[in-house]
Amino acid sequence: MHDRGGKHEKTADLGDVRLDLDRRRRCGFPEVVFGESKDVATLKRVIQRLLDDEQPVLITRVSVDKGTELAAAFPAGRYNAVARTFVVGTLRVPSEDYGTRSVPTTCGRVAVVTAGTSDMPVAEEVRETVEWMGVSCDSVVDVGVAGPQRLQEVLPRIVGSDAVVVVAGMEAALASVVGGYVDCPVIAVPTSVGYGASFGGIAALLGMLNSCAANVSVVNIDAGFKAGYIAGLIAKRRVSK
Amino acid sequence: MHDRGGKHEKTADLGDVRLDLDRRRRCGFPEVVFGESKDVATLKRVIQRLLDDEQPVLITRVSVDKGTELAAAFPAGRYNAVARTFVVGTLRVPSEDYGTRSVPTTCGRVAVVTAGTSDMPVAEEVRETVEWMGVSCDSVVDVGVAGPQRLQEVLPRIVGSDAVVVVAGMEAALASVVGGYVDCPVIAVPTSVGYGASFGGIAALLGMLNSCAANVSVVNIDAGFKAGYIAGLIAKRRVSK
Amino acid sequence: MHDRGGKHEKTADLGDVRLDLDRRRRCGFPEVVFGESKDVATLKRVIQRLLDDEQPVLITRVSVDKGTELAAAFPAGRYNAVARTFVVGTLRVPSEDYGTRSVPTTCGRVAVVTAGTSDMPVAEEVRETVEWMGVSCDSVVDVGVAGPQRLQEVLPRIVGSDAVVVVAGMEAALASVVGGYVDCPVIAVPTSVGYGASFGGIAALLGMLNSCAANVSVVNIDAGFKAGYIAGLIAKRRVSK
Amino acid sequence: MHDRGGKHEKTADLGDVRLDLDRRRRCGFPEVVFGESKDVATLKRVIQRLLDDEQPVLITRVSVDKGTELAAAFPAGRYNAVARTFVVGTLRVPSEDYGTRSVPTTCGRVAVVTAGTSDMPVAEEVRETVEWMGVSCDSVVDVGVAGPQRLQEVLPRIVGSDAVVVVAGMEAALASVVGGYVDCPVIAVPTSVGYGASFGGIAALLGMLNSCAANVSVVNIDAGFKAGYIAGLIAKRRVSK
Amino acid sequence: MHDRGGKHEKTADLGDVRLDLDRRRRCGFPEVVFGESKDVATLKRVIQRLLDDEQPVLITRVSVDKGTELAAAFPAGRYNAVARTFVVGTLRVPSEDYGTRSVPTTCGRVAVVTAGTSDMPVAEEVRETVEWMGVSCDSVVDVGVAGPQRLQEVLPRIVGSDAVVVVAGMEAALASVVGGYVDCPVIAVPTSVGYGASFGGIAALLGMLNSCAANVSVVNIDAGFKAGYIAGLIAKRRVSK
Amino acid sequence: MHDRGGKHEKTADLGDVRLDLDRRRRCGFPEVVFGESKDVATLKRVIQRLLDDEQPVLITRVSVDKGTELAAAFPAGRYNAVARTFVVGTLRVPSEDYGTRSVPTTCGRVAVVTAGTSDMPVAEEVRETVEWMGVSCDSVVDVGVAGPQRLQEVLPRIVGSDAVVVVAGMEAALASVVGGYVDCPVIAVPTSVGYGASFGGIAALLGMLNSCAANVSVVNIDAGFKAGYIAGLIAKRRVSK
Amino acid sequence: MHDRGGKHEKTADLGDVRLDLDRRRRCGFPEVVFGESKDVATLKRVIQRLLDDEQPVLITRVSVDKGTELAAAFPAGRYNAVARTFVVGTLRVPSEDYGTRSVPTTCGRVAVVTAGTSDMPVAEEVRETVEWMGVSCDSVVDVGVAGPQRLQEVLPRIVGSDAVVVVAGMEAALASVVGGYVDCPVIAVPTSVGYGASFGGIAALLGMLNSCAANVSVVNIDAGFKAGYIAGLIAKRRVSK
Amino acid sequence: MHDRGGKHEKTADLGDVRLDLDRRRRCGFPEVVFGESKDVATLKRVIQRLLDDEQPVLITRVSVDKGTELAAAFPAGRYNAVARTFVVGTLRVPSEDYGTRSVPTTCGRVAVVTAGTSDMPVAEEVRETVEWMGVSCDSVVDVGVAGPQRLQEVLPRIVGSDAVVVVAGMEAALASVVGGYVDCPVIAVPTSVGYGASFGGIAALLGMLNSCAANVSVVNIDAGFKAGYIAGLIAKRRVSK
Repeated sequence: MHDRGGKHEKTADLGDVRLDLDRRRRCGFPEVVFGESKDVATLKRVIQRLLDDEQPVLITRVSVDKGTELAAAFPAGRYNAVARTFVVGTLRVPSEDYGTRSVPTTCGRVAVVTAGTSDMPVAEEVRETVEWMGVSCDSVVDVGVAGPQRLQEVLPRIVGSDAVVVVAGMEAALASVVGGYVDCPVIAVPTSVGYGASFGGIAALLGMLNSCAANVSVVNIDAGFKAGYIAGLIAKRRVSK
Repeated sequence: MHDRGGKHEKTADLGDVRLDLDRRRRCGFPEVVFGESKDVATLKRVIQRLLDDEQPVLITRVSVDKGTELAAAFPAGRYNAVARTFVVGTLRVPSEDYGTRSVPTTCGRVAVVTAGTSDMPVAEEVRETVEWMGVSCDSVVDVGVAGPQRLQEVLPRIVGSDAVVVVAGMEAALASVVGGYVDCPVIAVPTSVGYGASFGGIAALLGMLNSCAANVSVVNIDAGFKAGYIAGLIAKRRVSK
Repeated sequence: MHDRGGKHEKTADLGDVRLDLDRRRRCGFPEVVFGESKDVATLKRVIQRLLDDEQPVLITRVSVDKGTELAAAFPAGRYNAVARTFVVGTLRVPSEDYGTRSVPTTCGRVAVVTAGTSDMPVAEEVRETVEWMGVSCDSVVDVGVAGPQRLQEVLPRIVGSDAVVVVAGMEAALASVVGGYVDCPVIAVPTSVGYGASFGGIAALLGMLNSCAANVSVVNIDAGFKAGYIAGLIAKRRVSK
Repeated sequence: MHDRGGKHEKTADLGDVRLDLDRRRRCGFPEVVFGESKDVATLKRVIQRLLDDEQPVLITRVSVDKGTELAAAFPAGRYNAVARTFVVGTLRVPSEDYGTRSVPTTCGRVAVVTAGTSDMPVAEEVRETVEWMGVSCDSVVDVGVAGPQRLQEVLPRIVGSDAVVVVAGMEAALASVVGGYVDCPVIAVPTSVGYGASFGGIAALLGMLNSCAANVSVVNIDAGFKAGYIAGLIAKRRVSK
Repeated sequence: MHDRGGKHEKTADLGDVRLDLDRRRRCGFPEVVFGESKDVATLKRVIQRLLDDEQPVLITRVSVDKGTELAAAFPAGRYNAVARTFVVGTLRVPSEDYGTRSVPTTCGRVAVVTAGTSDMPVAEEVRETVEWMGVSCDSVVDVGVAGPQRLQEVLPRIVGSDAVVVVAGMEAALASVVGGYVDCPVIAVPTSVGYGASFGGIAALLGMLNSCAANVSVVNIDAGFKAGYIAGLIAKRRVSK
Repeated sequence: MHDRGGKHEKTADLGDVRLDLDRRRRCGFPEVVFGESKDVATLKRVIQRLLDDEQPVLITRVSVDKGTELAAAFPAGRYNAVARTFVVGTLRVPSEDYGTRSVPTTCGRVAVVTAGTSDMPVAEEVRETVEWMGVSCDSVVDVGVAGPQRLQEVLPRIVGSDAVVVVAGMEAALASVVGGYVDCPVIAVPTSVGYGASFGGIAALLGMLNSCAANVSVVNIDAGFKAGYIAGLIAKRRVSK
Repeated sequence: MHDRGGKHEKTADLGDVRLDLDRRRRCGFPEVVFGESKDVATLKRVIQRLLDDEQPVLITRVSVDKGTELAAAFPAGRYNAVARTFVVGTLRVPSEDYGTRSVPTTCGRVAVVTAGTSDMPVAEEVRETVEWMGVSCDSVVDVGVAGPQRLQEVLPRIVGSDAVVVVAGMEAALASVVGGYVDCPVIAVPTSVGYGASFGGIAALLGMLNSCAANVSVVNIDAGFKAGYIAGLIAKRRVSK
Repeated sequence: MHDRGGKHEKTADLGDVRLDLDRRRRCGFPEVVFGESKDVATLKRVIQRLLDDEQPVLITRVSVDKGTELAAAFPAGRYNAVARTFVVGTLRVPSEDYGTRSVPTTCGRVAVVTAGTSDMPVAEEVRETVEWMGVSCDSVVDVGVAGPQRLQEVLPRIVGSDAVVVVAGMEAALASVVGGYVDCPVIAVPTSVGYGASFGGIAALLGMLNSCAANVSVVNIDAGFKAGYIAGLIAKRRVSK
């Protein structure tokens, strides 16, 4: 946490945003900002304030228009148009920033697995989040269960991860199937991919919640950031003793 | 169809039941009777009337109490307490009854596959129905996807069927997984097995409707009879040219 | 399956698509591609790869823009703007490709029946799918039950099919009514046609799932491809002994 | 309306019940009492108060226990255990009570049609209500659409009614089919008959609301009284000019 | 019904439309056409065919674009942009067309009542339908219950109608309140007016289905045509003895 | 707050219950205990602890069995079997306990209005809560809108209250109608009264949430305590300046 | 109420709008107009009529286009583009207009608290409404519970209000948390902020309805006006004895 | 895995149960058995087979009747009537069984936190599961947010855990609040506690899925076992490098 005038501030009042500068101390990582309902001017103020406090920045749900403006304003940042994320300062997180626990610059391993190509934007949001946390991430795409040999072919890339994120829409059977092969937590992300009775991801959500595999927990529909964050937490803890 | 006094009756008016005696001619099989909301007296009249017409009888959703009474009244019948079915005259369907098409006494092959032991009553209803239609039926139980080697071990019993019925509750991933391995239609039966967000079978129903496998169609929750009937129709047609 | 350098590949890794080349061997027909969320470049790669493997191609949910581009790129292909399908190589499926079972070039008969004119796009997707499988298909349109003489007039075109697909929105009563007249499986497709309490096809879906006709199974809302595929499987099996 | 001490009372305050004695003047018929949540003592007070006011009595949703007690207390009354109704004073409604309009003692014709035998209790509630209003009622039972010849056989009993009540559960296709044959209003009553995705009558309710027949309106699930009341109103108006 | 070459046709096959020319004989009024999913060319063919058969025409859900084209093509017709209806030949229905029953040219009285100004389009669809049937219709608008004196002020225009149509969104309390004041059937139309938990009319629909007034039946959300049609049927029957 | 050994405790750890002794200081009234899932032994410990702290006690959702035991154990308490409440120390709330604000022993006025007799248990829970808070409460029962003169007759008892609680099931139109007559907040309690499409109170809940009256807010289905508590807070504040 | 020609009118019939001029007498404040479905011409007529009657004006849900036109037409008015409100005559409400009760020009205190910046439009609608009623309003924004120190820092601005409005989407935990800290009613407004399983505000709505804090009642999703109005009523009553 | 006759079996076919003996090798822990739909005889066979294979046993959802029988049959086992679990062989998991990774006998730390006393059964299922996995577990009960000081008082017992399980019904705000204080994953379990609009846990489920805290993932309603299992996996991995 940055020292502004001799005093550690916990909250930055930016008018319509009340930034939680203390999040990193309490929760291990800085506040990640939901970009969807904030205009570019607000986002710039938020980013600048975090950088002033020497906190790495991750903004999610950033449209292409906003992303282009942000990339111009912060040349050190990187916009991913598929993931709709904007990141500044991901790499080289100074380990001394983490307070009492020592955290290596890069550590742990997460696999993100998708059922189909339509799940790509969510999978990319997962990957950007995991890497921003200083954890390595392997993307394994389009291994839906209707072609069962496909998962078999890529299993070696999945087994042995610290956490697996499964991204799937429609009936989302992949979460249960992957869960049966691994010994780590699986975070399942239902996606709004599908039509008709997929109901914008409800079918996938219910399928994942009712998974017969004991190691599967679930996040909100399309919530790639949250799944990536939790997977990153698990991977990071494992190596941060 | 039985000739009563020189005239083929299409409907038998039994007071509160209007029995469709013409069903066999139009649809290939006699009317199957839903037993849940009918008392034993009514069921006896229905059964007797069908037997008078020389039509084989299948009653579904028969409670143990009613089943015991029916078995006593019709010693030629058989009550299955797990399936909750009562059958009279399944075997030895006279092939000449089928009109223009010739039907062998026993023919075709259906596999019924369950995800867990709780799906047994529905699977038994499937099996009773299929066998009543003169089709052989193989029950493969408890091969849910969380233990993926289990399905692999029994695949030879499933592949090569004329139709497969998959019975599963919770997230019902098994329907999609089986669908990816076979070249015949899969009829999926969601079951009300599960708790919480399984919502009495809705999660399984939605999962099956959204199956990524192209050969999966769906029937109502716990509708073992209907799934068995459709599987039987497919198996029967195949051999009845 | 095509032999590429002496070795049968089961999966083609095209980057964001992992094509299931083994589908035809396992399931009887090549992988059909869901076109909605894939861009034209990806679709072209997929089509080319399937053609390289000498597999007939069916792409569904292809918008007019994409369809026009694909038709230009693959002059042997045919785009159906109502069905939103793109087909290459439907006809003249080499029967020797089917492995141990011998399949005639054209065989079986499916009827697709619609309740109203608004159900036409789904019915066309059914027809394109059935014909791509080498099965003949008769479209019977606008015979909703409010004008009951209409169905009576066309019944001879429906009775005697190997399978019937009923396409209907709103209350979808047509599925049950047709089911009562035929001796083959009925695959019911609820459509998102209607307004208010049709809830984008939910009313039709529930109606079809609760059909009092024993031979009716159901697929997802607007899932013309899946219904056609299953009907085609049934018709094909019947003649492929 | 009875004159109590020279003054017409509009409301009778019976403690926990505030009886609407003015209903008959405003709406043509006395207040009908929903019996489900009232104890026998309360029901007796209500009945006595209506009789004191010379208003014919209809109580609905009366359990067998309560019905037996009421029948003992009011020997002129009649309890129908299937319909769960208790009636006193149905017949011989004094026509002079209807104010300016003259109403014959018995008039009009309603048909109540059911899809299956399980719909009987609701159909009986319809019939009791219609007859209590002094309208004749013909019950046509078990003509569900899966046996299409059944409806054809009874159509002459339905066509020509002043109003038709269709009582059906499951997919409730019967309402639309009947609606296509008649030139009078059809009041559709979804029933909670069925299982699984019938969702206690929701499927039937949605089906009826989305009926493609223009003359179909709908009442609450199992609301036999309301459907009968509206049918009675229509039949009564027709003859009461 | 028009005699084409000595033979009464019951159905007109117009390609994608199968017009029910027999509707008028069976149901009292010609088929009304749902215009939403039909293009102008189809609508023109339908209208011409009905006019050739000397049947008055009502098309509903006609967008402004289509309406303008139809009005140009059929100068005798009238397009109502609020109701989105197109009518040809409403007035002067030849009474001899109604077969055995004699119907006066204009007769009966319907009141349509709205809760708010946003319900106007649906109310206008009701009015156009009622008047097309040869029944007079009085529109009483914006009498929602939050200002209770408003309904009191207009009650004399409502009481005494043959049928009342109540059009309301949000909580739709108006249907019950009006129901308590009249002695004729009330047909309630929930509208999709509102926001949030009105869920596009579901709240209003449920409110109307659960109305404590015994004379209220319900049609689909925004189904002005159907409500008007049923109200017209009731008004017409009353005078057509 | 009671002083135990010179120190004000904020929380009492009773094993499986962690009682909030500080509630009264923060929120104006002591913690009210939800009795449904607690056994009698636990409830006794909770009551004793509150009495030790000189805080008046209100337990809700107390079954008759538990209520009888509690009444025996705490003779100063009073069990209301309709409301399912147990109260000790309601009357004579020492005003000095309220800290900085002075509260008279009895003050303010709340009216609770029900649509039907079935709403009585919830209305009684409201009344018990309001009176426990030292506010007077007038119960006005069975004034549903189908008999509109009934509300008119009792309006003088409602107008002029500090807050009105409307308790209604089914379509719950009463909340909006009452809201249009008063100048104070209306707290609406949907009840699970009704059948079919009332869906256990959902119809009433949605109706109340969509009320066109601006002064209506809503609490959970059957939440008589909460509605009474909020009404009591409003009445109390008004007089506690 | 304005005297037009010696007679107090209760309702103004403006064609498609029936304005409730009596609302102020009955309910304490003039009718507030829902602007969403009314065109500018209608709104102008409504505003002018209210001003003629000397009633202060509040129009909600006014789009920017309409707001700009209204501001030009009524220079004394003020359009708030975030709140989408148009106000004329908020300040200086003549206290003699309130009839028998005396109301000071400005009085009471309401706090509106938001969980995130996306809730701003609803919070602004709350504030505009409260201030139009002559009550002061303090906006406390972006104090969602994930950064718990934020609420602690602003608690002094919230505690001591006459009523608190909590505006929150997603899981809406803030309502319960705030409810635990204050001794006045909390009116909770669920917002449609969020994605996936927030279902347009349903998750927040359910969360608020199930709040474990006893002082929380709920209004419709995004219903800022209604929450502000109720909070204003409470604050106003407190000071208007 | 036990060696039976020189061969490691992966599956044990027990008739209606197909036990996954390979689960421990693939997933780190033996198959846990869902006891709800299995009779005692079946459970005994399952337990014996697992013990024969030297795998520690955990059965969930065991009713008191079954639990008593099992405890008699396996004296080494322990039945927890609150948690409804039966455990044999929890302690002294031989670390050499875990293959390549070394696992200490007891390790890691999980906190389970409940909102109310009604959540106890689920919390106990969590604790039994965690401890069966050889991880220590601290239960912190009844710290719902309406009494905010309660969570503050117990925070030291929660912060510093390897994973936290939050068990809450109703609005489930506790998950988000706890999530804001800790730097480890939070697994949220919605419970079916509550009434009315809690809808058997749906409100809690949606609240948890929409949590604004980034570290919260969710399992099925009342799924204490699954939450405990995932928490145990996280705690175990952390120490098992």
